[in-house]
Amino acid sequence: MTELLRVGFVGCGSHATMSIMPSLRFAPIELISVCDLDTERAEYAARVFGAKRIEPSYQSLVEKDDIDAVFVVGPSKMHTKVAIAAMQAGKHVFSEKPPGENLEAALEMQKVSRDTGRYCMIAFMKRFGTTYKKAKELMSEEFFGRPSQIMARYAHWHQNTLRDHLIYMSVHLIDLARFFMGDYVRLSAEKNVLDGQHSFSISARFASGAVGSIISSTQQPRVQERVEISGERALIVVDNIVNLEVHRSGCNGIDPGFKLSDIQIYRPDFSIPCPDQNSLWFQGYAGEIINFSEAILAGHAPSVTIDDGVAAMRVVDWLERGAEGALELESAGDNS
Amino acid sequence: MTELLRVGFVGCGSHATMSIMPSLRFAPIELISVCDLDTERAEYAARVFGAKRIEPSYQSLVEKDDIDAVFVVGPSKMHTKVAIAAMQAGKHVFSEKPPGENLEAALEMQKVSRDTGRYCMIAFMKRFGTTYKKAKELMSEEFFGRPSQIMARYAHWHQNTLRDHLIYMSVHLIDLARFFMGDYVRLSAEKNVLDGQHSFSISARFASGAVGSIISSTQQPRVQERVEISGERALIVVDNIVNLEVHRSGCNGIDPGFKLSDIQIYRPDFSIPCPDQNSLWFQGYAGEIINFSEAILAGHAPSVTIDDGVAAMRVVDWLERGAEGALELESAGDNS
Amino acid sequence: MTELLRVGFVGCGSHATMSIMPSLRFAPIELISVCDLDTERAEYAARVFGAKRIEPSYQSLVEKDDIDAVFVVGPSKMHTKVAIAAMQAGKHVFSEKPPGENLEAALEMQKVSRDTGRYCMIAFMKRFGTTYKKAKELMSEEFFGRPSQIMARYAHWHQNTLRDHLIYMSVHLIDLARFFMGDYVRLSAEKNVLDGQHSFSISARFASGAVGSIISSTQQPRVQERVEISGERALIVVDNIVNLEVHRSGCNGIDPGFKLSDIQIYRPDFSIPCPDQNSLWFQGYAGEIINFSEAILAGHAPSVTIDDGVAAMRVVDWLERGAEGALELESAGDNS
Amino acid sequence: MTELLRVGFVGCGSHATMSIMPSLRFAPIELISVCDLDTERAEYAARVFGAKRIEPSYQSLVEKDDIDAVFVVGPSKMHTKVAIAAMQAGKHVFSEKPPGENLEAALEMQKVSRDTGRYCMIAFMKRFGTTYKKAKELMSEEFFGRPSQIMARYAHWHQNTLRDHLIYMSVHLIDLARFFMGDYVRLSAEKNVLDGQHSFSISARFASGAVGSIISSTQQPRVQERVEISGERALIVVDNIVNLEVHRSGCNGIDPGFKLSDIQIYRPDFSIPCPDQNSLWFQGYAGEIINFSEAILAGHAPSVTIDDGVAAMRVVDWLERGAEGALELESAGDNS
Repeated sequence: MTELLRVGFVGCGSHATMSIMPSLRFAPIELISVCDLDTERAEYAARVFGAKRIEPSYQSLVEKDDIDAVFVVGPSKMHTKVAIAAMQAGKHVFSEKPPGENLEAALEMQKVSRDTGRYCMIAFMKRFGTTYKKAKELMSEEFFGRPSQIMARYAHWHQNTLRDHLIYMSVHLIDLARFFMGDYVRLSAEKNVLDGQHSFSISARFASGAVGSIISSTQQPRVQERVEISGERALIVVDNIVNLEVHRSGCNGIDPGFKLSDIQIYRPDFSIPCPDQNSLWFQGYAGEIINFSEAILAGHAPSVTIDDGVAAMRVVDWLERGAEGALELESAGDNS
Repeated sequence: MTELLRVGFVGCGSHATMSIMPSLRFAPIELISVCDLDTERAEYAARVFGAKRIEPSYQSLVEKDDIDAVFVVGPSKMHTKVAIAAMQAGKHVFSEKPPGENLEAALEMQKVSRDTGRYCMIAFMKRFGTTYKKAKELMSEEFFGRPSQIMARYAHWHQNTLRDHLIYMSVHLIDLARFFMGDYVRLSAEKNVLDGQHSFSISARFASGAVGSIISSTQQPRVQERVEISGERALIVVDNIVNLEVHRSGCNGIDPGFKLSDIQIYRPDFSIPCPDQNSLWFQGYAGEIINFSEAILAGHAPSVTIDDGVAAMRVVDWLERGAEGALELESAGDNS
Repeated sequence: MTELLRVGFVGCGSHATMSIMPSLRFAPIELISVCDLDTERAEYAARVFGAKRIEPSYQSLVEKDDIDAVFVVGPSKMHTKVAIAAMQAGKHVFSEKPPGENLEAALEMQKVSRDTGRYCMIAFMKRFGTTYKKAKELMSEEFFGRPSQIMARYAHWHQNTLRDHLIYMSVHLIDLARFFMGDYVRLSAEKNVLDGQHSFSISARFASGAVGSIISSTQQPRVQERVEISGERALIVVDNIVNLEVHRSGCNGIDPGFKLSDIQIYRPDFSIPCPDQNSLWFQGYAGEIINFSEAILAGHAPSVTIDDGVAAMRVVDWLERGAEGALELESAGDNS
Repeated sequence: MTELLRVGFVGCGSHATMSIMPSLRFAPIELISVCDLDTERAEYAARVFGAKRIEPSYQSLVEKDDIDAVFVVGPSKMHTKVAIAAMQAGKHVFSEKPPGENLEAALEMQKVSRDTGRYCMIAFMKRFGTTYKKAKELMSEEFFGRPSQIMARYAHWHQNTLRDHLIYMSVHLIDLARFFMGDYVRLSAEKNVLDGQHSFSISARFASGAVGSIISSTQQPRVQERVEISGERALIVVDNIVNLEVHRSGCNGIDPGFKLSDIQIYRPDFSIPCPDQNSLWFQGYAGEIINFSEAILAGHAPSVTIDDGVAAMRVVDWLERGAEGALELESAGDNS
């Protein structure tokens, strides 16, 4: 029988029960304990996800010896508090993003992780989504060539505060562009504010020499997510997470005939309830949890850690403070 | 606290654990017991979905007094066998489709349901999918007018036998067209067979006077599902389950100006892990289970029963026997 | 210098001046003369398309020795009248569809063509559209396998009469399905009529053994055109004329990984004003006129003739007379 | 009878004969004369577009008294030379873009236009395309609110030189963003160069306070054009010129039900050869020529002039010189 990672789970709110807990079953994980300030939420979670017990507090949860790792999913401040307590109690941590309410909190989590030698994964699940993962793989193929440019847009409904906008929403975008293109070395931004809602048009330069446009806004209806990545000989587009297009060079658009291979697309056949069509998979939740649990069981770091969280929060911090002038990130160190 | 329907679940295979069991949590249901011939599957299901106990056999499961209803998800013959045993033991039944391996089996299930007064829901989940449900609602709005025509296509990869093709796959299509357009009164078909794979091009007449083309095939790559419904003044298209288009009359395509309202579309914003974007919801699994559990708790029939299963299997039966000549279904009775 | 086909053009209405005359310039054609009952239309056409003279009547136009061929674009009866006069005057004919107002007229045109040895092309331009032509070529490639099934839908706004519906609109659809799949051998139809508007759901069997669903309706908003062609190992879809999708077998939709080559698509890059993006090309007007003029200059028949017109009108005739029972077309002869 | 603008046309190359000359027929224009260094091209143009005579040189063409306006379509230097000669000869000018090979040339054309009082329209045809025109109209409607942000991307195949990239291709993009958002006040850019091909990620601030990302590249396959415009309460997307989407606020993506009006789309029904489906219309050629000819006949300026050409070339000039630092355009004057 497969060895299972024994997990305690702090926070049984809607996000935890809609996306994170349902994904545990795809990973080598046994859910030992749950806790939530709202007892009914904890009872619901324990009942439908088969937790063995309900803990009265996160403090008691993290202390127990029969768990190897702690998941924390809640408001930003809770992530910091629980993650630190869990690492200090010797547990590895899977923390929902953001890694704290600001850069300082993220740096504190990073310090505790380094001091205790416990891993603290930050749940940038988009990196594990079916199409984003595939896009990243395609970028290393011969046909793509060297990366040259990215356009990444994550725009959506109004947020109460600029901080909410940045730490709960934009942080995804900032991490995602970095996932594809590598470390930032310079960012500059133009900002529009109308009735307290912000739109940022950000120009980016990456360490590789590639460039990009990063678009973050709370002035668009619903949620609008789109990434376009160019290389020397191809363009990869991921729209609305599930639609992947690969455009290859070869046809200049002028020849009367066309090459059928010009655009290759992938989209799920939603008719069939298999992983590719399952939202927990294409949104990345299954993948991130599998990555975390397998890494911990194997004794190495998961592929996304608090270092990536700090890198993203550094940009968040600059945007929150007004984004005046360029943000120069001269060394790799600044990106984490 | 909400009253919960106490459920025993027979069959812990991949479909059960990928789609049906994960949807139980959206409904007022308590999972009491599970059973499967493969003990490991039963243990996995019990662990991750929180079942209180594992039963050694379906016979013992259906007899217990602490359950109100039985779910059965497995091969076609098992549906009949377990459903009948459960109804005879006084339990209501939620049966995965098909309702048995052939028309006779479905009729037998129907008879037991009538004799015992127990409900036997057949899990035609597509009726409960977000866009199909919305399409059905739109058909009753003024702008749509009387329904005139449907094109329903469900085509996919090779199947081992014509029977598998029909009872596991086409049965969805046959029920779906009937869901939108009402009872069939006449069907005629042209059939192509290549290397044992069948394509049917079926013309249908419905009791309402509307007509339709029903396309079922095992000669297309992957899974291809599409429905187009016309009324006097509008066209509704549902493609790949998640994409809904509403075309309204008013513009003849010749006027140089255009009316922006011409096409309205709905597609999930997959960026956000909410019900509309969750595959368990848009594929209909959550909806069918909510419908079943609420109906049973309220003491009335669920909205899809073994009568609908029989109606669909009547068409399956005709197709399996060669589809020669027209299938005349002169009365409503023939449709169930 | 290239030899030019000398052309007289009868009918300077909106269709002639919007689509046919503007396409002459892509072909080895010299426009010698035009005529129209409305003198202003003739003058406009002569001015903007460089015709050398305006003829007072079609009778005088067809008689002149300095033309090799006559184009006729107008109402259905005019096509018959002018085409016959032109052939009897020794000229080859390019006739807009329909080939007359009914089957009898088409047969009369066919007889004159045979008697005089003059070619009479019927302008089924869709056969020459960029994507339809490409789809036809793809059907003969190894990956496609033997054709098994077609769905062809051409549905649109209201028409004044069933005849208008059939001869001006559906005739395209009937020819297009035959272009892809070959001769029909059996057709049967279900028909819905609401407020004088008709919807036909037609099942077809082709001489090759392939089958199909043909959907013709005047109860849909605007114009809705879509063709889906299946072979043993692939599906080709052409939607809205310009969007071509090729789905190949190989992936069953269940494997967690996906093959990027699964769907290949072609769509014009409309940003560039080149043939592929030019409506005269992708709608087929340029191609049909090039086909006609090159064939006549080379002394052989164009690829679509009055025989194809007769084949389509035979189906039109059956539909107009009520489409009761099946239309059996036992020999190739019945298709022309 | 309508009064016609009498036109002489300089340059009979492929762009002139594919897009510009064929659009003359939609406008109140009479084509009097053509000229080209290649006599065969001039003869072809005269024959198929009905020009009354072929002139031996542009100098003789612009001098004739029987023309009111001169069209010039050719390489960049020719635009400047012919436009200036024509204005000095008292003729109004319709010049293909770019307005000369660099900013100096554009300024010279502007000076001559001011000195002679002759209008010099620059053919930024995208402003007149069906969907872009509609998008602009929608921006002034109540539902849109104040404009906040634009993403405009025009990326395509390799170009021989940075200058060709900028003056023949990017100039469209620079003008288009300004058409939608108004005058620029600041631009800053990140630039990637691989094998002589450039990608620019430009951040823009507009006089209105709105911001934007402008993406210009010669490292993408074929031609990729897309514009996304946000306002306070809506998002308008124009993709591949012909696809217009309007997303309105109101739904946050979280409510389980959806409002069908969420996304409205327009796309041509290409089945029908009417203006909306005609590439000369949706690409903007018909519209720009109608605008020019009607303005000149009415005695006022066309809606796009050499002032707009200068504004675009000012940005081109900055990009060509390296785009170091920000380009500050403090007054409206700098934008023209």
